[in-house]
Amino acid sequence: MHKSTALLTDMYELTMVDSTLASGTADRQSVFEVFSRRLPSGRRYGVVAGTGRILDEIASFTFSDEELTYLKDTKIVSPETVDWLANYKFSGDIYGYAEGECFFPQSPILTVTGTFAEAVILETLVLSILNHDAAVAAAASRMTIAAHGRPCLEMGARRTHERAAVSAARAAAVGGFAGTSVLEAGRTYGIPAIGTAAHSFTLVHDTEEQAFAAQVATMGPDTTLLVDTYDVERGVARAVQAAREAGGELGAVRLDSGDLVAQAFTVRKQLDDLGATSTKITVTSDLDEYAIAALGAAPVDSYGVGTKLVTGSGFPTAELVYKLVAREDANGNMKEVAKKSASKKSYGGLKVAGRLADEDGVAREEVIVSAESWEQGRAELEEMGARPLQVPLVLGGSIQPHHSVAEASEHHISSRNQLPYQAWRLSAGEPALPSRMLDIFEGDNNPYEG
Amino acid sequence: MHKSTALLTDMYELTMVDSTLASGTADRQSVFEVFSRRLPSGRRYGVVAGTGRILDEIASFTFSDEELTYLKDTKIVSPETVDWLANYKFSGDIYGYAEGECFFPQSPILTVTGTFAEAVILETLVLSILNHDAAVAAAASRMTIAAHGRPCLEMGARRTHERAAVSAARAAAVGGFAGTSVLEAGRTYGIPAIGTAAHSFTLVHDTEEQAFAAQVATMGPDTTLLVDTYDVERGVARAVQAAREAGGELGAVRLDSGDLVAQAFTVRKQLDDLGATSTKITVTSDLDEYAIAALGAAPVDSYGVGTKLVTGSGFPTAELVYKLVAREDANGNMKEVAKKSASKKSYGGLKVAGRLADEDGVAREEVIVSAESWEQGRAELEEMGARPLQVPLVLGGSIQPHHSVAEASEHHISSRNQLPYQAWRLSAGEPALPSRMLDIFEGDNNPYEG
Repeated sequence: MHKSTALLTDMYELTMVDSTLASGTADRQSVFEVFSRRLPSGRRYGVVAGTGRILDEIASFTFSDEELTYLKDTKIVSPETVDWLANYKFSGDIYGYAEGECFFPQSPILTVTGTFAEAVILETLVLSILNHDAAVAAAASRMTIAAHGRPCLEMGARRTHERAAVSAARAAAVGGFAGTSVLEAGRTYGIPAIGTAAHSFTLVHDTEEQAFAAQVATMGPDTTLLVDTYDVERGVARAVQAAREAGGELGAVRLDSGDLVAQAFTVRKQLDDLGATSTKITVTSDLDEYAIAALGAAPVDSYGVGTKLVTGSGFPTAELVYKLVAREDANGNMKEVAKKSASKKSYGGLKVAGRLADEDGVAREEVIVSAESWEQGRAELEEMGARPLQVPLVLGGSIQPHHSVAEASEHHISSRNQLPYQAWRLSAGEPALPSRMLDIFEGDNNPYEG
Repeated sequence: MHKSTALLTDMYELTMVDSTLASGTADRQSVFEVFSRRLPSGRRYGVVAGTGRILDEIASFTFSDEELTYLKDTKIVSPETVDWLANYKFSGDIYGYAEGECFFPQSPILTVTGTFAEAVILETLVLSILNHDAAVAAAASRMTIAAHGRPCLEMGARRTHERAAVSAARAAAVGGFAGTSVLEAGRTYGIPAIGTAAHSFTLVHDTEEQAFAAQVATMGPDTTLLVDTYDVERGVARAVQAAREAGGELGAVRLDSGDLVAQAFTVRKQLDDLGATSTKITVTSDLDEYAIAALGAAPVDSYGVGTKLVTGSGFPTAELVYKLVAREDANGNMKEVAKKSASKKSYGGLKVAGRLADEDGVAREEVIVSAESWEQGRAELEEMGARPLQVPLVLGGSIQPHHSVAEASEHHISSRNQLPYQAWRLSAGEPALPSRMLDIFEGDNNPYEG
């Protein structure tokens, strides 16, 4: 695999650079904004995730000889543009919502300013990261709400692309998950790695007793034994026995099939009858936020979630777009711009966002103001008593200190806790907060095109 | 990003290696099989995709000091297992359906044989690749059926993980797509890269005329101009004019919003009235196989597909599993095994598969036979007149010649053309072929566990 991230890019980004270099518009100062026109219908709020990954990948967004050779050989861009790309390094500014922050329709979650050419070229990579990671984080957040404090563990690697799996584990952690099965996510992001054994482990031994004894011998009696390979009741009895033969009490049993609610009650009673009151129950079969909610009253201690988590639980991509909202004109003045469309409303110009809360600290509105500058917009928001949402991520091409995964997760829980009751509903419906646009330019009255 | 693929693995694969090394079962000869119990409800057939990627990634599935240090520091496995992993290189055999082949429930699309430990460890990576790539290829195949010969172009990178995007472009090509917007997929797999400009390109210029002139100047009059930034009718007139001013006829216009069917007719008439009869129309707004089918009677020349393609058009993951179906016992005899479950039927043992056709060459049945060996199963299938479906992919750890992306695509179209009429239906329903299991061991009567 190539290390450079520069070709993780739609071809049209480079042909636009090519054409604007030729037409003299490549160097126009520009403002691009990432936002969603709407949330997916099953979501009351969005979760910003992937910001830290964007900052890592922008650092490897450079064109080495290998990338340039491909572009030269295929004649995708002119020789002059190849030279320009050879020297490419993003030198502009990026502001964005802190990773983990909740967002709503029109929230300007990432704002990239720089020349047109240096900023447009980042579009594909920025959207890929945010659309994937935000979709998974939103699903994760709903699941951790439904789990009501019981730990949720990510186990979906096998149901998504192998590299997406690592990012999904990271996004799940931002959304409140406590661990992941994917070792690369453990290594790269320091997320606690979890896992013990699959059915094949039991099957490769001649008997279930031998399998359990083998696992307890290496992982200790405190391990989690998978008890449903043959017969759950017999499996539970053997599991408790295997741990005791090794001189301890069993850590947990894992249930991976069947009617989990009924089974959890039966198994809990069996464990208690055996005196294994400290032995926990973890369940892992086809869970989503609804199944987790349904297990709320069952004696379950943790949830392992796979497919539905890594595929965004019905919404595998956030609907984020990257739009040019302002740029310099021929006279060097900044102009707000927006595409004109009957069906989609577009709002031009630099926007600064804040969240207004009521006297009890409950958020009630996302306020988005049009501004000449960050400072001016922020001052306006502070005057209204709103909590400013954007932080500097890149200044003059230099990456700023930003949230670790653990900090993003903390920030998410804190932001989510501030949302009104509606945010906690799993049903489809309106966003938990309304977005109010103040003094915003609308593309429908574009004065720059006649 | 780390180059090794060895940690793209669920932790439990390594703890199972750890425990079986200790219990003496790690070296038992084993057979693992990849199959799906059912197709997603919206699919009449599955498409094998990702096989070539598996073979590439197995080559980088080795544990270097960096990986071993992580495993040592976290004490995920014992020091003895760290040593075993340091020497790990898959030395077994892999047979599988040729990439591009159609598959059905229970089709054994990949069979991995080797010691338990060397084969179990590949589970996560193999499933990640196949579940992702097969889901995208199946969606792509339905879209190319709906497009009825008109070229389909992949443009979904921004709506999926940045590395998944490259694999999605590859899987789309296997499913019959003609090109991709993602440059990395162009470089890595030789898929034709396509793309010209976005709305931001028009907006950074002071007028649409200037934008079109700039694009035509660098890309030639044969380019595709995006005509819906402000007003489609005016955009089309300006686009044709821009090409003619540069001394040519416009290659194509692109429509990216609005009611595409109505718009295609209007724009076609306008182009014809302007004498631009050779100018084509490409459409790119929120397409899926149903929208493509609905555009079948409209004067559209090609389709650009994004979100729905890379997210598997409603089914973002294939439901493929990797199961131990046979292994050596304590006496060195091979035993068929399967998990016992009331809800899911499992079939043990090595299986060899073939496709039976009627006298007109139309496929009518997937036949799956239990076999002692590949040769024996294949002989049995040939005697029945079935086309054998499995080919050797890895023999004794050595990767065999296999389909390129272009060959996989050809193979897919040929396999699909052999399917009965039902396969071409976009509606949900039964698989296009029934699967017949011959002499297959069922886990429900497992004689090896009492």
